[in-house]
Amino acid sequence: MQDTISRLRDAKMTNILRVQSAALKAIHDYMYERGVVQAMPVILSPETDPLNHPHFDASVEYYGQRLHLTKSMILHKQLSLLNGGFDKVYVMSPNVRLEEGSLGGTGRHLFEFTQVDIELKGRSKEDFMELVDGMVARVFSFVKKECEEDLAALDRKLRVPATPLKVFESEDLRDRYGDDFEARASRELEDPFWVTNFRREFYDKEDKKRRGYYHNYDVFWPEGFGEALSGGEREWEYAEIVRKMTERKTDLRGYKTYLEMARQGLIPSTVGGGMGIERMVRYLTGQKHVKDVALFPRVPGENIAF
Amino acid sequence: MQDTISRLRDAKMTNILRVQSAALKAIHDYMYERGVVQAMPVILSPETDPLNHPHFDASVEYYGQRLHLTKSMILHKQLSLLNGGFDKVYVMSPNVRLEEGSLGGTGRHLFEFTQVDIELKGRSKEDFMELVDGMVARVFSFVKKECEEDLAALDRKLRVPATPLKVFESEDLRDRYGDDFEARASRELEDPFWVTNFRREFYDKEDKKRRGYYHNYDVFWPEGFGEALSGGEREWEYAEIVRKMTERKTDLRGYKTYLEMARQGLIPSTVGGGMGIERMVRYLTGQKHVKDVALFPRVPGENIAF
Repeated sequence: MQDTISRLRDAKMTNILRVQSAALKAIHDYMYERGVVQAMPVILSPETDPLNHPHFDASVEYYGQRLHLTKSMILHKQLSLLNGGFDKVYVMSPNVRLEEGSLGGTGRHLFEFTQVDIELKGRSKEDFMELVDGMVARVFSFVKKECEEDLAALDRKLRVPATPLKVFESEDLRDRYGDDFEARASRELEDPFWVTNFRREFYDKEDKKRRGYYHNYDVFWPEGFGEALSGGEREWEYAEIVRKMTERKTDLRGYKTYLEMARQGLIPSTVGGGMGIERMVRYLTGQKHVKDVALFPRVPGENIAF
Repeated sequence: MQDTISRLRDAKMTNILRVQSAALKAIHDYMYERGVVQAMPVILSPETDPLNHPHFDASVEYYGQRLHLTKSMILHKQLSLLNGGFDKVYVMSPNVRLEEGSLGGTGRHLFEFTQVDIELKGRSKEDFMELVDGMVARVFSFVKKECEEDLAALDRKLRVPATPLKVFESEDLRDRYGDDFEARASRELEDPFWVTNFRREFYDKEDKKRRGYYHNYDVFWPEGFGEALSGGEREWEYAEIVRKMTERKTDLRGYKTYLEMARQGLIPSTVGGGMGIERMVRYLTGQKHVKDVALFPRVPGENIAF
């Protein structure tokens, strides 16, 4: 409990919360100006992101139905764009991922965090990158202008990144830096940067002509702060979705509605991604661990005092 | 599933999401201008609002610890104000309340919804009312200006309420309207209004000289739309908190950290409240049921398709 009290009382927390408030304001302003409509988060759902890496179950039962805590809103974002009246949507989306305690020490994992989660209909990854580049530039310049004293108090020199952010192919970075390319590139590069093509979740689009090439991406923060955003162009065709779920040993029975929508051709072609707010604030304020920017941090494997 | 598809495709949903986006933008602008810092939501916690009315358990286990889905962030809001550097905080806070299916028909209950949840340190209920009056006026005038076409498409005539909103004592309304005063006053009055003094949760301040009088309040939307906001001045003294929890048969063992903080005199004197976003959007857009403004509504007792 002493930890909780010290954290809550820490003068640094005031500066961090002011930076966070400015960053969130810049995001909302930017989205609103661009006509990206804001939807409300989903917390419980019968179907959620399968999350293709180890984690514990987080679900509750209510009136005979098993409802899962949202691991990401990807499936709901895709379907929200079924509407013909808007083609850009974002959500301030809390995600719960009960991951293994070994991730507690990475400095960037919380088992509960919020993404600004964005999805665009009928656009390409280039369109999405342009939107995010603009958002990053907007957040950084707004924070720098509004929070000069807070950044000084935190001894943080903030650089507004030059846009467009550089885009690298993961295989090129692997050639240059080895298998640890994410961490090494994040330490060596000065500005945030995009990396494309990762084999991961079923919903990230795989090239039909070049199997094993994925039209997805991450953004990384520099100075060793690591992953900032993940996303991609999405699969929307039923056969591809089923093939890729099966490859990943996903239990299809957990995706009844989603798969039926896909079978009926109802999933629109979209592109998107989510940027972690706490990781962004960690980078903006230069904190050692993502838990240092949270009033009530949830670190994988750690006991939660409050 | 047909319901889900129709809802997602409904042209009306575009208008509603635009109104919602404008309303959220107005809230964030207003808070930012007033220096109310924005904290991130808490989704899982060992201690949450006991919620003094019937509901089912919503909790998960993680590394041997039982964590509850947030029913409201009241306890965390109080403690966040332990920090000496800010005295106003707000959170866009998703709440999960697995209430009884009988509430599905009220038109204003979802078992999952988002509050704009605000808390002020060292202020009175009058200060809080002034802040909320300003927020309501700002939201309504912004939506009216920005969403003229959407409101027309929804056939909704929106009235920007005159502020300060009227304040009634619950006993006066009860004298005038009978026990059903909330619903009747909501139907008869033209503008949103405050009602003070309700016996409910332990954390709402009871007058020490006049037991049975509570320094809390609700805001109601007019035209029969009902409850909009709940809040109050808060208990912060250990003896009062224990007395009132005991009166309400709350299991004190579920509040170890909170009670220990109270015992050490660490809970600041605060006032606050939370306004439901979906209910606000329902009123702004004049929809019959709060589910009509949600892309993925969670109605108590109803099967969730997606």
